[in-house]
Amino acid sequence: MSHAEIIAIGSELLTPFRSDTNSLWLTAELNALGIAVRRKTVVGDDELFLEETLRDALRNSPVVITTGGLGPTEDDITRKVVARVTQRPLVLQPDILDRIRHQFESRGLKMAPNNERQALVPRDAEALHNEYGTAPGIVIAEGDRLLILLPGPPREMRPMFTTHVRPRLAPLAGSTRLRTRTLRVAGMGESQVDDLIAPIYTRYTNPTTTILFNNTEVELHFTASAPSDAEAEALLDEVVGQVEQVLGVNVFSHCGETLEQIVGLRLTLKGYTIATAESCTGGLLSKRLTDVPGSSKYFLEGVIAYANEAKTRRLGVPAELIAAHGAVSAEVAEAMATGVKARAGTTIGVGITGIAGPDGGTDEKPVGLVYVGVAGDFIVTHRKFILPGDRDRIRHLASQVALDLVRRTFLL
Amino acid sequence: MSHAEIIAIGSELLTPFRSDTNSLWLTAELNALGIAVRRKTVVGDDELFLEETLRDALRNSPVVITTGGLGPTEDDITRKVVARVTQRPLVLQPDILDRIRHQFESRGLKMAPNNERQALVPRDAEALHNEYGTAPGIVIAEGDRLLILLPGPPREMRPMFTTHVRPRLAPLAGSTRLRTRTLRVAGMGESQVDDLIAPIYTRYTNPTTTILFNNTEVELHFTASAPSDAEAEALLDEVVGQVEQVLGVNVFSHCGETLEQIVGLRLTLKGYTIATAESCTGGLLSKRLTDVPGSSKYFLEGVIAYANEAKTRRLGVPAELIAAHGAVSAEVAEAMATGVKARAGTTIGVGITGIAGPDGGTDEKPVGLVYVGVAGDFIVTHRKFILPGDRDRIRHLASQVALDLVRRTFLL
Repeated sequence: MSHAEIIAIGSELLTPFRSDTNSLWLTAELNALGIAVRRKTVVGDDELFLEETLRDALRNSPVVITTGGLGPTEDDITRKVVARVTQRPLVLQPDILDRIRHQFESRGLKMAPNNERQALVPRDAEALHNEYGTAPGIVIAEGDRLLILLPGPPREMRPMFTTHVRPRLAPLAGSTRLRTRTLRVAGMGESQVDDLIAPIYTRYTNPTTTILFNNTEVELHFTASAPSDAEAEALLDEVVGQVEQVLGVNVFSHCGETLEQIVGLRLTLKGYTIATAESCTGGLLSKRLTDVPGSSKYFLEGVIAYANEAKTRRLGVPAELIAAHGAVSAEVAEAMATGVKARAGTTIGVGITGIAGPDGGTDEKPVGLVYVGVAGDFIVTHRKFILPGDRDRIRHLASQVALDLVRRTFLL
Repeated sequence: MSHAEIIAIGSELLTPFRSDTNSLWLTAELNALGIAVRRKTVVGDDELFLEETLRDALRNSPVVITTGGLGPTEDDITRKVVARVTQRPLVLQPDILDRIRHQFESRGLKMAPNNERQALVPRDAEALHNEYGTAPGIVIAEGDRLLILLPGPPREMRPMFTTHVRPRLAPLAGSTRLRTRTLRVAGMGESQVDDLIAPIYTRYTNPTTTILFNNTEVELHFTASAPSDAEAEALLDEVVGQVEQVLGVNVFSHCGETLEQIVGLRLTLKGYTIATAESCTGGLLSKRLTDVPGSSKYFLEGVIAYANEAKTRRLGVPAELIAAHGAVSAEVAEAMATGVKARAGTTIGVGITGIAGPDGGTDEKPVGLVYVGVAGDFIVTHRKFILPGDRDRIRHLASQVALDLVRRTFLL
């Protein structure tokens, strides 16, 4: 398989505040073409380091892609350093200069003299049109090496890659096709999943299997390479099929959808409606349900009842029930679900009550204790969880287990 | 100033699914010691590339830190490659082996033979105790170069850096101290902020100024270097003071706090309480308010009224008002705020109604149109916004402008 290196250029990427995300997008695109990424480098606006990094990359990899450093200011050194490394003087291209000047004029602005720099292109290199900005991209063929310079802003870089670079790389991919598949799993931890599926995936080197724990759920990525898409898909089918079988209903998504998308899809298909009653999650469950476009078809209303008094007034949870069992209890979770379902007139009601911390925990009811209640026309039930982590993580996990309980109770 | 390179090792970091975040944390730590990061590299479990990357780094930088690749499996090649690059054979250290075996036994497990590898340390190198895992870190002094190998998992890497590495690097920092400060700005775009403050910060090369647009707000980072903390702070005071003056109340946070933290802090100080009524944000405003530990003191309840009927029943918004002006209108936003305030009995009520898209927009009321209403004891008012971006961004921006309107109306 052919391989590439990616170099991100810009001093802001060497601060604690910003990371290079372009390379993740580029990696997905390259992989889809059957090109693996073997090294990624971040350098600042620093001629010495950029020069050495470029030389190393061109020595080791047939495809080298840089992002950033093509702007109009002194800091933007990519063009200059590339000219030196490839021993090609920079030549001013009048047609590019005209286009840049025109882009400014069409917005009623005068081009600053600085921007002339952006019309400089190394000799015998090809400029790539930038539809969404002034900096053109550049492609240089150095013997059997391809050096591709792209602008840093994703909204300029991505369309430029898609339109101009992808067609040029496709022939390099040769005969290898890469296909990926993603499964998402709820209700199980990373090591639990691994124990179950390791006997399957360790028997295969193709596809490769990656297990990620994404804060709240286990994600399984499978990548197969083969001479054709169909053969790669067949390799995936073989392994993913076995994995799906041992994980059963714990797999909630087979094409990378989120849990809220799956719940929304199934609610729509069944014609169900849902209302939420939240305490410790403070709106997060409703927020996730309404993240999905079109959710107004099934999500009718939600109540965040932080104060006990609000649980009684807004949801009809009897004050005596709260007094008898405490606000964080199975009884109150079920009463919240029943109450919000009755008042909203929905098919399903879901209630969450718990202790997200950092304060408020006791020996009997520790931080992380969460009860989820669900109510339908013929069933009212609950589950108890002790969730790990800090406030943020507990709240996110609580919204996840609530969505998953709705899925398992009403939507399988 | 001294400088460092960071190398992240692991094939999973060369997939589209995962990025190296250790280097951001390490950069903050190194910067605090007065050490700049000049290059970051990600390589896979790939001996050839790792070897070359290590050689280049040691040639160019006095401090080289690697993360990852110290595990017990065949894939974990860091020790082996470092031994080759530094020409130091790997020596089995019996005391480390005992400790690893003991760590397994204390959890009732038997050590797998693989784990013996983790007790291999290059000759004359120093092993660093790993309190939270089995892989020890390694420090090698190569002439005037310091090569530091750390494990990949953040919960192992961070305490190891803090306990063992930081004290070793402190002398390298020499006489330079680095101090940073962060301002956050609401209600202004990136270029608006830049127009106002560029005349200030461009007059200084120290501190450096970085402007970031963080999806919903502008963040300003200032970094000053000086022989002492006090001098660095004085440099910051000079520039940041001028910037604060021109930006005025648009600066909502001076120490990096989030907008919801600032709103929560001011609500607490004033003894105010708040309730929310949300439509298009679907719970996100309440979620952000309750992200803050201790928010139950001021956040009493929230209602997500997606359906018009819920706006009337839950919030007392007159059906005629909705019929006359539409659900997305200034009148309804104010009525939602007034309604939720009255029913919850809080000091402040806030209402949001808008069109988050992708569907539901019209020529008259386009996607992105959002009204925020706020109600206090003596004032009811609203603001209209046309927010850019996709559904996610519009919802996030809507929650941001709502929090900011609460801040500006009641909390200055």
